Amino acid sequence: MAKKPVKKAKEADAKPDLAEVRAQIDGIDRRIQELIAERANWAHQVGKAKGKLAAAVDYYRPEREAQVLRRVVDRNDGPLSDEVLVRVFREVMSACLAQQEPLKIGYLGPEGTFSQQAVHKHFGHSAHGLPMASIEEVFQEVAAGHADFGVVPVENSGQGTIQVTLDLFLTSPLKICGEVELRVHQHLLSRSGRIEDIERVYAHPQALAQTAGWLRTNLPKAEKIPVSSNAEGARRARNADDAAAIAGESAGLVYGLKRIAGPIEDRSDNTTRFLVLGRESFPSSGHDRTSLLVFIRDRPGALYGVLEPLARRGISMNRIESRPAHGHLWQYAFFIDVAGHCQESPLKDALDEIAEKGDEVRVLGSYPVAIL
Amino acid sequence: MAKKPVKKAKEADAKPDLAEVRAQIDGIDRRIQELIAERANWAHQVGKAKGKLAAAVDYYRPEREAQVLRRVVDRNDGPLSDEVLVRVFREVMSACLAQQEPLKIGYLGPEGTFSQQAVHKHFGHSAHGLPMASIEEVFQEVAAGHADFGVVPVENSGQGTIQVTLDLFLTSPLKICGEVELRVHQHLLSRSGRIEDIERVYAHPQALAQTAGWLRTNLPKAEKIPVSSNAEGARRARNADDAAAIAGESAGLVYGLKRIAGPIEDRSDNTTRFLVLGRESFPSSGHDRTSLLVFIRDRPGALYGVLEPLARRGISMNRIESRPAHGHLWQYAFFIDVAGHCQESPLKDALDEIAEKGDEVRVLGSYPVAIL
Repeated sequence: MAKKPVKKAKEADAKPDLAEVRAQIDGIDRRIQELIAERANWAHQVGKAKGKLAAAVDYYRPEREAQVLRRVVDRNDGPLSDEVLVRVFREVMSACLAQQEPLKIGYLGPEGTFSQQAVHKHFGHSAHGLPMASIEEVFQEVAAGHADFGVVPVENSGQGTIQVTLDLFLTSPLKICGEVELRVHQHLLSRSGRIEDIERVYAHPQALAQTAGWLRTNLPKAEKIPVSSNAEGARRARNADDAAAIAGESAGLVYGLKRIAGPIEDRSDNTTRFLVLGRESFPSSGHDRTSLLVFIRDRPGALYGVLEPLARRGISMNRIESRPAHGHLWQYAFFIDVAGHCQESPLKDALDEIAEKGDEVRVLGSYPVAIL
Repeated sequence: MAKKPVKKAKEADAKPDLAEVRAQIDGIDRRIQELIAERANWAHQVGKAKGKLAAAVDYYRPEREAQVLRRVVDRNDGPLSDEVLVRVFREVMSACLAQQEPLKIGYLGPEGTFSQQAVHKHFGHSAHGLPMASIEEVFQEVAAGHADFGVVPVENSGQGTIQVTLDLFLTSPLKICGEVELRVHQHLLSRSGRIEDIERVYAHPQALAQTAGWLRTNLPKAEKIPVSSNAEGARRARNADDAAAIAGESAGLVYGLKRIAGPIEDRSDNTTRFLVLGRESFPSSGHDRTSLLVFIRDRPGALYGVLEPLARRGISMNRIESRPAHGHLWQYAFFIDVAGHCQESPLKDALDEIAEKGDEVRVLGSYPVAIL
């Protein structure tokens, strides 16, 4: 590999020659390209090291990808943002992985949904997305091996748990091997920036739903007008003094609107959370979460019996949700998310202790905590 | 910048140690990251070299990006495909450009359309897409400066020219500064792979339209059943011997279908072509196309008078399309795409000659030929 020394940009004059700057960038690009090719060759070796050469699904290691991306964030001291750098490295990994048959990822279609965005955010654009007609079908196609992984929504902080997803885990043998979070913040924007002028509020119906409580308190008399997108609402709002739009901050910049208030979503963290489904379990990435499914007999203290071994070991619980356990002798199923990996202490010890007591606990999966 | 020598993957043993391979990849990633940061700093210098520091739109140079990507393709000798590498470098450039306010790109919404794919393909994911309600609005928002660039469909090889786009150029001051092509090939797929078994064909209505001629000739009696997506059709086809689906080849792989025939789209190159709209013209990238709008008086030989100076200089013409020129003294407008850049010979000379003759020729734009 040729390695000409590259002049540091910071050392350049305040007004460098454009041709010289471009020549420097060309040199950098050439070296980036050499390194990417080198990386792809090594990634290929990983397959060999595992003793087989096959499709991308045989190479894909979520815990390893999480570690690589965390290192990217740790190392980053600018000028690019963590988010942008993670996206670039996601694409590099996605590209290296796609040397064989690309990963096939089932998701709730149609194309263009948040679910597709989640697929690309997690697997990069070299993975092959397969839109499915229902969440149930995503489970089926992954179980049948027609898709390597699936991405399904499990929780929208504005609208709660997607119950169908949880219920499918009651009977599915699939493992959770990742999570993806997409964040959206809503703001109230208008031309004047003064709330007392506002008679009408434009937004997509979902945005209106996510901010319904705030609107009821702060703009009880304003007309709420659903439009096809928040961008459309922002566009309309810029032409009238009595109109506001609910949209992301960028829409305000774009349409020259001022922020009256925000974020105004009723749940402070307006995030859709997705789970990545696969057929196998993966080792620890060093910063993991574990989803448990616990079946509880209707006896006093049963839930406590499960939670106590966790609490005693200082294992933090992110989420607990009860569901009727259809077709089970047990009466309730609890979905519990806890910190840690099921094959590592202290979680492993807690799970062993719960099993000894005879409570039924299924590990739905241990997986890296979402990166950005 | 640290530059530890990197062991070449090819020199490694057939079964290298997994930990060692990963350490090598980590070293490569660190160096890629250093180079990307260095590149971002230099890209920042480009702005300085131009004597200002502002939004991404002031840095964006389509001719330069085209040159960078062509170099990537020229240099590529594997193992990754040109397509995958171009995508990675597109993201790197997009990231470097987004250090300031990101590019704002208007497109025909809603999100998830082909137009949005075209935006991402051309500008990368660090650009900010603005879905618009109509093609006309994309023109307006770019002209008004609310969007930096616009992406509008102009031609679908299956369904012809998008007339509204051409007509908007009749009155718009905007310049074409790029083109994007999205290719789709359709195949007839079934479980058995035998055409004589097929009684039903499932596909998205657009795919049915794009292959209507082939179906009429080859499967005149089969029932054509529109479904929500081609993937959905493929899924249905795998459960019956008498059913086929029209879909991309990857769907065949995914659903275990055999190819009966393909590509079967009626136009051999089933491509949607998009134009990138901007407010200014850009210099030559070295491999450009120019779109001309020619107004022709209703006199014999008028069109010939325009074409002859082009033909005599051996300038190849990709496309010609006539439209009634509403509100013009002239009776016809011709949209003509020719090879070359309007500021370079031989096209410049031909245009000068046409102007001397008194024919009205407007250069809608000279722009890099689409890369992949």
